[in-house]
Amino acid sequence: MTRLSDLGESEVLRRLLAHRRSGAHEEVGPGDDAAVTKITGRLVSTADMLVENEDFTRDWLDWSRLGTKAAAQNLADVCAMGARPHGLLASLAVPDDTDVTDLEALFAGIVAEAERAGRALGAQVPIIGGDLSSSGLIVTAITALGTVAPGEAVTRAGARPGDEIWLAGTLGRSAAGLDLLFAGAGSDPELPDDLAGLIGTQLAPQPDYAAIAHRPAASAMIDVSDGLSTDLGRIAEASGVRADIDRAALEDLIAALRPAARYVLDARGGETADAGIDELALHWVLDGGEDHGFVASAPVSQGDPVGWRRIGEMQDGSGVSLDGAPVPTSGFSHFGK
Amino acid sequence: MTRLSDLGESEVLRRLLAHRRSGAHEEVGPGDDAAVTKITGRLVSTADMLVENEDFTRDWLDWSRLGTKAAAQNLADVCAMGARPHGLLASLAVPDDTDVTDLEALFAGIVAEAERAGRALGAQVPIIGGDLSSSGLIVTAITALGTVAPGEAVTRAGARPGDEIWLAGTLGRSAAGLDLLFAGAGSDPELPDDLAGLIGTQLAPQPDYAAIAHRPAASAMIDVSDGLSTDLGRIAEASGVRADIDRAALEDLIAALRPAARYVLDARGGETADAGIDELALHWVLDGGEDHGFVASAPVSQGDPVGWRRIGEMQDGSGVSLDGAPVPTSGFSHFGK
Repeated sequence: MTRLSDLGESEVLRRLLAHRRSGAHEEVGPGDDAAVTKITGRLVSTADMLVENEDFTRDWLDWSRLGTKAAAQNLADVCAMGARPHGLLASLAVPDDTDVTDLEALFAGIVAEAERAGRALGAQVPIIGGDLSSSGLIVTAITALGTVAPGEAVTRAGARPGDEIWLAGTLGRSAAGLDLLFAGAGSDPELPDDLAGLIGTQLAPQPDYAAIAHRPAASAMIDVSDGLSTDLGRIAEASGVRADIDRAALEDLIAALRPAARYVLDARGGETADAGIDELALHWVLDGGEDHGFVASAPVSQGDPVGWRRIGEMQDGSGVSLDGAPVPTSGFSHFGK
Repeated sequence: MTRLSDLGESEVLRRLLAHRRSGAHEEVGPGDDAAVTKITGRLVSTADMLVENEDFTRDWLDWSRLGTKAAAQNLADVCAMGARPHGLLASLAVPDDTDVTDLEALFAGIVAEAERAGRALGAQVPIIGGDLSSSGLIVTAITALGTVAPGEAVTRAGARPGDEIWLAGTLGRSAAGLDLLFAGAGSDPELPDDLAGLIGTQLAPQPDYAAIAHRPAASAMIDVSDGLSTDLGRIAEASGVRADIDRAALEDLIAALRPAARYVLDARGGETADAGIDELALHWVLDGGEDHGFVASAPVSQGDPVGWRRIGEMQDGSGVSLDGAPVPTSGFSHFGK
């Protein structure tokens, strides 16, 4: 193994940048004080961090998948504005004694996910900048940039009563994967493939970027990062509507998580009742974040947009409900509340 | 004191955003999936982190000045491209038990420095996005965005033999301040004001953004973040020239640091010879980073640009020299080399 401290910053940077591919819109790439890129339309920008011991642990760490996740959570935010990704800036803080091949895997994971988003949406999405620092904790801090035509950005504020609610992608898989990891499933040699797949979603979510290109004529849209109840609640609040979820439309997603719920509850000990399994699977689907699905509202009669399913309706009122019964917006929050 | 964990993420964010001022070019500000801003010309982007125990320690921590420094090092990079700042994204990772007023001071420090840069250059520079995370270590990860007219970006690659070398701002003050802190000067009640001022530059550098507006017709330009020898070496390498520094032009900067050099050498014990003092002061000026001065090359006959001084000449050859004698480019590097 070759530690970063064996190589020094310049050589480490050289190795990372060998994984980079430039975009045709780059006029000045990495290596100067700042990048210069040609841009058309409005600029869309967002930033998100992943922090060791908060968002992942060293025990579960897969460097490549960490790169996927760090890129995906930012790219999904750009896409949720109805924008095309333009490039990423990747700031990475890692310990001095990190194996350079691990850091390369992290960087290559970011590159690959940015390119996957680009392919889905017909865009080049290079890493146009960033920073590298030694650090006692692993931290990724990504900024994703995008472009959108004037007046075309889709905010959270445009939903109207009567609009249908649409979902692209999955719900609850990442949350189930996290609970499986806490239950020790990561080191279970007999773990069924479908449960391992849930852990895979927790470690490296795969947003369905292409769905953005096929979206209904959205009045509002959001990336589901903190849970359907919380993120739909944000649309409801910003738009001044009530979001009513149709449980029947989520039933296959809930059913797919029942084996994982059984595994987690068995691992916690005690008797595992069917009602408890149903409750946990529903909780993951309603309140689990980080699958980075997209939720949009749109006026009725959108046909059958590829990659989207209808999961409810906007109504007069406020908050989020499930088949008419209020749902607390209880998704993830930093700082313990 | 009110800890972040007493408030929860939403309330903490609300308090931070109360320190923010929006810009007229913001179409969607913080609070949606991503910001949307109106942009003219080319996009300039750069990102830099500050990490606890690497870039600062808890002992010396001044939250407001940390915000100043985090913003300044990024804004200086945008300005060193000849660009106007457009906005910042600020990702902040801090411990759960941080006093909310400390985090507010950090954020307000970022806001104030961005506004200082904006005033100097006739631009609005709002905080348009970012992220907030709990973390075992304090980390700031800022992305600075700017704009420049097509073809007007000033890279490191345009210097030509015969060009004069110009400096705006100071050199060595931040490095002297760091050595003073290591020497315990931070807790010396009898520390002279001028030495305290050097510590101030280390904690909160104040780039002379206005000098960018008055710059000579620069063929190349760089922000001095890693030391004059290293950063001028980057221009020399990118441009295929030799950068010869005129020591006489730096003499007042060196002389101003002699009292600090005496203090540091006295604190280290042993006899302090005048030659040692001169050597350390010169080392700070040549190799010390983080004052975030600007260095530019320009064809001769630039008159007397306000805020700039002539410090040398580009010649045929490679590397950096001082009055003709080669200087090693020995500035800061992460990962121990």
